[in-house]
Amino acid sequence: MNELDRLEAMLRERPTFLSNAQRRAAYDAQGDRFAPAADVLVEPVTAHGVPAEWTSTPVASTSEVILYLHGGGYAWGSLKSHRHLVSELGRAAAMRTLALEYRRAPECPFPQALEDAVSGYRFLLDSGVHPRQIAVAGDSAGAGLAVALLVRLKELGMQQPAGALLLSPWVDMTATADSYRRNAQRDPVLNREIMQFLAGQYLGERPRETPLASPVFADLSGIAPLTIFVGSTEALLDDAIALARAAGLADVSVRLEIWPKMFHIWPNYHPVLAQGRQGVTKAGRLLRDAVDHYGSGE
Amino acid sequence: MNELDRLEAMLRERPTFLSNAQRRAAYDAQGDRFAPAADVLVEPVTAHGVPAEWTSTPVASTSEVILYLHGGGYAWGSLKSHRHLVSELGRAAAMRTLALEYRRAPECPFPQALEDAVSGYRFLLDSGVHPRQIAVAGDSAGAGLAVALLVRLKELGMQQPAGALLLSPWVDMTATADSYRRNAQRDPVLNREIMQFLAGQYLGERPRETPLASPVFADLSGIAPLTIFVGSTEALLDDAIALARAAGLADVSVRLEIWPKMFHIWPNYHPVLAQGRQGVTKAGRLLRDAVDHYGSGE
Repeated sequence: MNELDRLEAMLRERPTFLSNAQRRAAYDAQGDRFAPAADVLVEPVTAHGVPAEWTSTPVASTSEVILYLHGGGYAWGSLKSHRHLVSELGRAAAMRTLALEYRRAPECPFPQALEDAVSGYRFLLDSGVHPRQIAVAGDSAGAGLAVALLVRLKELGMQQPAGALLLSPWVDMTATADSYRRNAQRDPVLNREIMQFLAGQYLGERPRETPLASPVFADLSGIAPLTIFVGSTEALLDDAIALARAAGLADVSVRLEIWPKMFHIWPNYHPVLAQGRQGVTKAGRLLRDAVDHYGSGE
Repeated sequence: MNELDRLEAMLRERPTFLSNAQRRAAYDAQGDRFAPAADVLVEPVTAHGVPAEWTSTPVASTSEVILYLHGGGYAWGSLKSHRHLVSELGRAAAMRTLALEYRRAPECPFPQALEDAVSGYRFLLDSGVHPRQIAVAGDSAGAGLAVALLVRLKELGMQQPAGALLLSPWVDMTATADSYRRNAQRDPVLNREIMQFLAGQYLGERPRETPLASPVFADLSGIAPLTIFVGSTEALLDDAIALARAAGLADVSVRLEIWPKMFHIWPNYHPVLAQGRQGVTKAGRLLRDAVDHYGSGE
């Protein structure tokens, strides 16, 4: 078995029915398994009330920042679970990262995660970082939250960041896209049932089409350029495609990459998967390009 | 008026009802208006029976080649009409180009254009060019023909090229995509009526879903990586998105870029439009990346 098959088999073997507490523990255990590299500097901080942390590597510029929103269905995941991914994205982009421990469902439903994301962005601005020195990034629900953040910033009359990088974004809480069916046998991680459970925890009785929770239904005009990575075997393939289309129709600059045979958030597995390392390297380069695009030269 | 508005106004003012002969003359007049740069070397050649021409600039490598298929609804367009676009793509990629004057409808309907594309590809191989030194490129119908060529090469058991660059591809001759309606007021060039006319000329009584004419319906598995550029105001926006999705589901590597406010084949207007120049530069770099990906270094 090659490393991809081995990894997919491992993912398929994970228990399906776990409590939120068990899921959160499993996410955090990932942080133990994939420890950040020895040269990563981690600095806890409170970002306008939101627990957060800076990471940097020796190559990080002092000026530009990746604002990172982790995945986990708005219910699971943490600074710890994603530190190895966030810190290596920062290395690949030669940027510092600020990751947010936004409030999670079901204890703290919509729109509390979004409020925390706005607080984190404001914290960066108040720290003297210019919007064009910020690239927002996130995976899965965190990528959906990143798009919602851009829409919310527009609503608040705040300046957009330089761009957003979205890894396997979850942007449609109706969970009705055709790729759930088309990739039902191929996706080793997600299915419609689990997404509907998560949507219920996050939204409660609110409509699944709530634009700031399902940003594919939002007015996306005027938001920052989007770079979207998705794997071809994902149940969420159509979320990525629908987001690209909706943003494109709204005259947002869009770049969508579909990576063959890759599964949900494959760059997360960069310590054990070649395509994961390639994904981190390329994503980091694109984050760097986004902030450089607005540099003094242009 | 800025250059984009001026150009769109000019495109809208073009007469709608023209004969094929008048359209062909109008395409060729574009070749007079946008003459190739002074340092472009043009060499006519017959490529296994197909009229063709090499172009090169002083920066062109001697080893890699862009095989170019021009647009014009399978009925219009020529070596002359597209020379300024093809030669500048070659400059941006630092590659030679071989453009084909494939047979056109209605005189020569499907599959004659495709047969000529295969002949051109065979000619390159027989000239000693390795498939991985070839990047296929095309615009509009030529981009659809490029995808059909990749599918046909697979059917014939021939090796795929390094990649394909598709500018505003037309890949669905049913012309029923939602973007025809959504962008009906915004697209200054194309509409459903003209595409249905062109489909009829090319396909005659054959089904509009014929896979090698409407490659969004083809089995795309195993074809070379696709890079797709499309403008946000195009009636063909959904052709690009549907192609990205179909190729992605077939485990083809896909990169889709949606350029805000751009119209059909905007890189064609590089002499008079900044985004056209940016499009040519970026497309050229991606063509170069495609062939370098398989270079001796990897």
